[in-house]
Parts: sequence; structure tokens; C-alpha cells
Amino acid sequence: MKLNEIGEIGLIQRITNRLNSVNQRTVLGIGDDAAVVEVSGNKLLVITTDMLVEGSHFIWEKISARDLGYKSLAVNLSDVAAMGGKPLHAVVALGLPSSLQVEDIDAFYDGMEELASRYGVDIIGGDITASPSSLVVSLTVVGEVDPAHLVTQAGAAEGDLVAVTGELGSSAAGLAILLNELPRVSSPARELALTRHLRPQPRVEAGQELAATGRVHAMKDISDGLAKELNTIATASKKMILIKAETIPVSPAAAAVAIELGQDPLPMALTGGEDYELVLTFSRGEWELIRTICQKLDVPVHVIGEVMTGEGVFLEKSGVRARLTPGGYSHF
Amino acid sequence: MKLNEIGEIGLIQRITNRLNSVNQRTVLGIGDDAAVVEVSGNKLLVITTDMLVEGSHFIWEKISARDLGYKSLAVNLSDVAAMGGKPLHAVVALGLPSSLQVEDIDAFYDGMEELASRYGVDIIGGDITASPSSLVVSLTVVGEVDPAHLVTQAGAAEGDLVAVTGELGSSAAGLAILLNELPRVSSPARELALTRHLRPQPRVEAGQELAATGRVHAMKDISDGLAKELNTIATASKKMILIKAETIPVSPAAAAVAIELGQDPLPMALTGGEDYELVLTFSRGEWELIRTICQKLDVPVHVIGEVMTGEGVFLEKSGVRARLTPGGYSHF
Repeated sequence: MKLNEIGEIGLIQRITNRLNSVNQRTVLGIGDDAAVVEVSGNKLLVITTDMLVEGSHFIWEKISARDLGYKSLAVNLSDVAAMGGKPLHAVVALGLPSSLQVEDIDAFYDGMEELASRYGVDIIGGDITASPSSLVVSLTVVGEVDPAHLVTQAGAAEGDLVAVTGELGSSAAGLAILLNELPRVSSPARELALTRHLRPQPRVEAGQELAATGRVHAMKDISDGLAKELNTIATASKKMILIKAETIPVSPAAAAVAIELGQDPLPMALTGGEDYELVLTFSRGEWELIRTICQKLDVPVHVIGEVMTGEGVFLEKSGVRARLTPGGYSHF
Repeated sequence: MKLNEIGEIGLIQRITNRLNSVNQRTVLGIGDDAAVVEVSGNKLLVITTDMLVEGSHFIWEKISARDLGYKSLAVNLSDVAAMGGKPLHAVVALGLPSSLQVEDIDAFYDGMEELASRYGVDIIGGDITASPSSLVVSLTVVGEVDPAHLVTQAGAAEGDLVAVTGELGSSAAGLAILLNELPRVSSPARELALTRHLRPQPRVEAGQELAATGRVHAMKDISDGLAKELNTIATASKKMILIKAETIPVSPAAAAVAIELGQDPLPMALTGGEDYELVLTFSRGEWELIRTICQKLDVPVHVIGEVMTGEGVFLEKSGVRARLTPGGYSHF
């Protein structure tokens, strides 16, 4: 069914029918001029927005509508998690080409709803509009955080350890497979890479639990690549960060794809982006606490470096240090 | 200067530098993963989002970047006003073609900031991303409202009067001038039409003050045309609405443009849309109160009809009633 067969009102009705309200604080959801939610007096509100544009962030032929919905919400939940926040509500603005199938929009919302319901997030409103060419998805997620648990990118302190959750480079490996096929990559590596790229798992519980310790000094989610996120933390915290190449948890999927491409997998893990893992800093003495929390949640976590006086980010590999710019390292 | 000469980080820095924080409840604004704002315990949060896509909502050659910024925020503030809410914070997602001039982005933010600062609204975050063809603007505005003052579209009651603020059809007249030039339209009418189309004035104070009376039963802003908004109120409230053609405040700009086009100005006022005026219903006995509030704020207000038992929206013209569908009336 084409969009113009159902019309905007029909589409909104269709979307409303398939969304469940799971959050008791939703006062008014889709359908009015704006959505209304209750807030409690002793919490801070967390708001984040992310836009995904066809041709820039995704290729319509390479991602299912359901995965696109899932991923669009995941990248926003990941931002809330990186602040230590609990996501609560989302609004969705869609710019739709008239050739789009209504079933694809259904599937898009199904994908969002799958992830939203897992975390008790309500999709409480939005805007649906025509777009002459590209499909555009813009999500805003609102969450809350206890003021004492709020973690920003600016708190890294001298002597802190730097750790990352999960493994890095899977998403970049998945993108490489989508774009180049790479038939010799093994099935398990292929599946891992594609799953991580198309359906990233935001570290919502880990972000909240780590922040709730009050011991995390700085935290970010890895959307633009570890190298860029570390540079942002270093700049915002006015510190230097030194990481060791040997300790970076390179995803086996990234390693398999790198072999197939005749490349070193490390750059993929450092700059590939879209892993939506967390990078955080904390005092050396808290490592046991951090590790225990992640273990309980079944989230891998690895120490990859430390925070020092100075500025910039440096990568040590085989005993040699090189500057790690947001775009990667230049040479060894 | 081209976008690719400054880069994303340079652009965000540039935007951050030109934004002023005016809201004391902003804890953390642009630059981190998400924005954080304080909320008070006895208020409801209002969230609205609107996307504007080049080619669908605006023609880049026909609107200045500054006006586009102003208008993008205005349409969202208007939604918050229609709930009786006080707008507080905005996040902005932009999909930008690489050919865009950085100065245009500056002007876009200047236009937003002009309106934002007038209402104490902070622009607290966003996302800037590449778009392969169209410029896309997606705003989300968060505000608050006292639970006792919240006004939805669903509360219209039998016997209510229906009133609109301002005059209708100006924005449609402005669009007609932009698209067709219409050189014989007088300068004052032209200026009025273009101003209302390019820089609509959201009824922020009026929305809040009217809602604060506790006497407004239903309210919407007129973004999609009076006919559609009335149909939404009638459906949501399960009532019939009857309006009289002779009482509709048709803008003089719409009248002038209609003459030039050889048309009846009434359809322009009923379905043109983008007027961002308010339509509201209230008990007959409250008219004096409503009128006094609007007079104090220098906002014109006119009673245009009443709410009755039944369903649908009807327009009475020269003693004849016809169904007013969301798209307009068919014939007399």
C-alpha cells in the first residue's frame, strides 16, 4: 500500500493503534498538539535527539524497515545511557517519500516498539511529513537521572582508568559486509557483524548502574568511534588520555573482515563508530566495582588506558606512542 | 564558507558560541551526549516535535535562513501554547546538504535564537548531520504546564462557544505571493501576508493565560487549517461543531490575494493553514473573560460558532449549512 492511499490521518491512526503505553507517567500521548508526561521533583530530565537520513546514515536497500526503527531508537537510548539516565519517552519525526510502502512504516514502528517496550519507553508523539526524496528519521528521547548520578564527558581525573564495554569494530565490519559482500567471511563472524550494525544493543542498564555507583567520572557512548569519543573526553576534561593498542577489545567480526580486506583490524575498532558501547573513566581503586557490575549484567568490560595530566589522546603500540586524533592514528 | 571547510566540530562550536543560556533550569546544554534540565515536582512536561523538509515545507530560494530558523521554532512553540504550556527547552536536528553555506546556518540559529530568547527558551542540544539532497529541520520543544491548566483537543462540551485568535488566511496569502508574485496586491497586504507566512507569531502568552483560567475546554493551534483543526476537536470531543461563514475573521491580506486570483477568500481562511492562531471552546458565560484576556494581550479574538450534540463540522453561509471536511467545504 502506498502512503498516498492511506493519508496522514490514516497513517497516524495506524501508528497509534500499534503502540502500547507502558509508562505510567504518560499523561497524553500521540494525537494532540503535544505529548504530556509527569515528572518527579527530585530528578533531572535528559533529552537527546538524533537524525538518520537515507543515503547518509543508511541505504534503504541494505536495511529492513524494522531494523531501521530499532536502530533509530537504539542510538538515542545509547545517548541517555551514557549520561547515566533512564530513558522514558520518545517523539519521532519522519520525513517520508510518497513512494514508501505503508507496511514499511508499520515495520519501522514495530522495530522501535520492540526496543521501547523492553526498556519501558513510551513513544508519545511525533510528526509525519512528506519528503521529496530521502527518507528522514528524527528521534528525540527524554529520560531522567538522579542529580547525584549524572555523568558527563567532562569529569575525567588524573590517574583514572579508561574502560570500554563490549567489543569494538563489529558495526564497521557489518557495514563493510553490506557494502562489499565479502563472501569469504565466516557465517558466525558475518552474523555478529550484521547484527551489531543493524541492531545495536544500547547499554541502557549498564549506563544506569555504573552511573548509580557515583564513582564514574566521565562517560560517553561510542557512536562516532572510540578515537573521537576519547578526544572529546580529553578536551572536555582538560586531560591527556593514553590507551594501549594491545588492550583494545577488537571484535572477532572486525578481525575477520579486516583479514578479508587485507587490513589491520585496529583502525576499524578505533574509528569505525556505531558500536554504541560505553567508554568511561574512574579511579583505579573502583575497577573491581565496575567489573562486578558489568559481570552481573553480562556486559564485557576492558581497561584500555589511563588519564594523565596534559592534553590530547595517545595510542601506545609495541612500545611506541602516536597521537590518536578523532580520525585515527597517522603512523607507527 | 562551505560546510565541509569548517567540519562538524567547528560547526557545533560556532553554534554553541552564538547561543545564550537564558533558562536557569538548564543544567547541561549543547556538547555532551544529551541535554539535562531540572524539572519541578508539580508540573507536567510538554514535548512536541516538528520536521520541516526543503521542497515540502519550504523552498530554499523563497525563504531566508533567518526566517526559516524563526519559523521552525515558532511552529513548535505554537504547539506548546495550544496545550496551555510554557515552552522551556528545544533540541534541533539538522540534515544539511554539503553545498550549504555556513553563514546560512548561522542565520538559521540567529532566527531561532531571536524567538527563543523572547520566550526564555533555551536551545539545549541537537544533532547535525549530512543530507544528500534536501535540507531537513527537526525541532523538539519541551515545556511545562500546571496539571490544572492543561488543555487538550478533547474537551469541547455541548453549548460551548468556538473562538479563534487573530485573522486567518494570511499565511496562505503569503505563500501564494511567494509562488505567483501577484504584482497587483497592495504593499500593505503583501507585507502582512509575507510576514505572517515567513515569521508566524505563536500565541505563547495567550495560550498560557487562556489555559490558566481553567475555563477553556478544548484548544488547538491552527497549523493545518481551521477546517482540519475543528474536525479534530469535534472527533476527539465526540461533538458537532457549527460555524458561521460571516463571523470567520478573514485576513485582509487573504482578501487582497483572493481578489487578485479571482477567488473567494473564505477557503483560504478555512483551509490555508500555517496561521498558528489558536482555536478554542469554552462555556458561553466565559466569553467576557476570554475576550478581556485577549484584549489585554492585544490579541484579536472572534467567536465563530458553537459546539452541539452530534458529530462532524458544519459551515453555515447565507442560511445554508454544508459539511466542512478537513479539506474544506464542497459547495453551497
